[in-house]
Amino acid sequence: MNFLEEKILHEGTIKAGNVLKIDSFLNHQIDIDIMRQLANEIKRRFKGKEVNKILTIEASGIAIATMLASMYDVPVVFAKKSETANSTDNKYVAHAYSFTHKTMNNVFVSKPYLQADDKVLIVDDFLADGQAMHALIDIVHQAGGAVVGLAVAVEKGQQNGGKLLRDEGYHLESIAIVESMDWETQTIKFRKQTKHVSDTYNLKLVDE
Amino acid sequence: MNFLEEKILHEGTIKAGNVLKIDSFLNHQIDIDIMRQLANEIKRRFKGKEVNKILTIEASGIAIATMLASMYDVPVVFAKKSETANSTDNKYVAHAYSFTHKTMNNVFVSKPYLQADDKVLIVDDFLADGQAMHALIDIVHQAGGAVVGLAVAVEKGQQNGGKLLRDEGYHLESIAIVESMDWETQTIKFRKQTKHVSDTYNLKLVDE
Repeated sequence: MNFLEEKILHEGTIKAGNVLKIDSFLNHQIDIDIMRQLANEIKRRFKGKEVNKILTIEASGIAIATMLASMYDVPVVFAKKSETANSTDNKYVAHAYSFTHKTMNNVFVSKPYLQADDKVLIVDDFLADGQAMHALIDIVHQAGGAVVGLAVAVEKGQQNGGKLLRDEGYHLESIAIVESMDWETQTIKFRKQTKHVSDTYNLKLVDE
Repeated sequence: MNFLEEKILHEGTIKAGNVLKIDSFLNHQIDIDIMRQLANEIKRRFKGKEVNKILTIEASGIAIATMLASMYDVPVVFAKKSETANSTDNKYVAHAYSFTHKTMNNVFVSKPYLQADDKVLIVDDFLADGQAMHALIDIVHQAGGAVVGLAVAVEKGQQNGGKLLRDEGYHLESIAIVESMDWETQTIKFRKQTKHVSDTYNLKLVDE
């Protein structure tokens, strides 16, 4: 069992409707040591791949993306979900249904921040139906950039997103894959990822 | 001139309606080196203060908060702006008018993530009228916690938020304070902060 699976076992709760609540360390409160380990593990799994930009989507993805970008020393771009007073028409737009919010979202990135020579690693906290991930891929392709790979903290293996993306040929790395979970018994089963035996890391960024 | 003022001069644009657009490095694309320097400078300005939690608000504040939390080695909590399918009634709620979105928002934090013994440094990207900052302060007080200080990347000194918060006795640190800006001439003037002469930093987190 890796560090993230252990953390999910200790702190996660399963809610009715196939919702895994891990907002004590990922979606609301952010455990910085878990973020570091996630970033380290994602970078390890994409070892040797050239990456010059990290793309994510607001809001929960930003923390992982920031830690990862700090390790690669490249910029983050976070796709936005709503029009703001600051926005312009100069943007790439895609559409995604949000499993969490039960709404259809416009997802957009301003054109100057994705270029044809970008080698993009796309990162998010959760992968379920893959709607957000497909929207981000679409946006990279609109810009003419290359999708180096996809990384998520938690893949919900009961849903179709991971299978679709792998069938489409993308290099997808999910640090924990939930094979099944049961609300009544509060039990969870993770998919074995024997290729990536990753025991507890304790690497730490230093600040001085 | 400090690193952030220089970056604003180089990459910022002034839009009609008193909007400073710096989404090439802070609000949409995130410049990781600027984030590191912001986090270092904020930590320096609160030197000697005990902090055990960083509080921010989604979405743009999360990147700065994550870098800062990594330096303090404490958790981030980001306040949310909308109800989600994952949320419960067990939360602290405050209200804030969004200058950017022109809407009144419910801002909330789940109760387990703020406690009476928390010493909280509140961080955000922009300070204008101080609505979001006041909502975050209100939430810390609802939890019975202590507000150690307030830190923002950019304070819009023409608006009232900074003055209000200082008059209320909070220790507010703004890395850049816009004294005035002019849309037609695209000029900007920063308030002198002689107490904090901070030339270009180039500190860097290492990942191994």
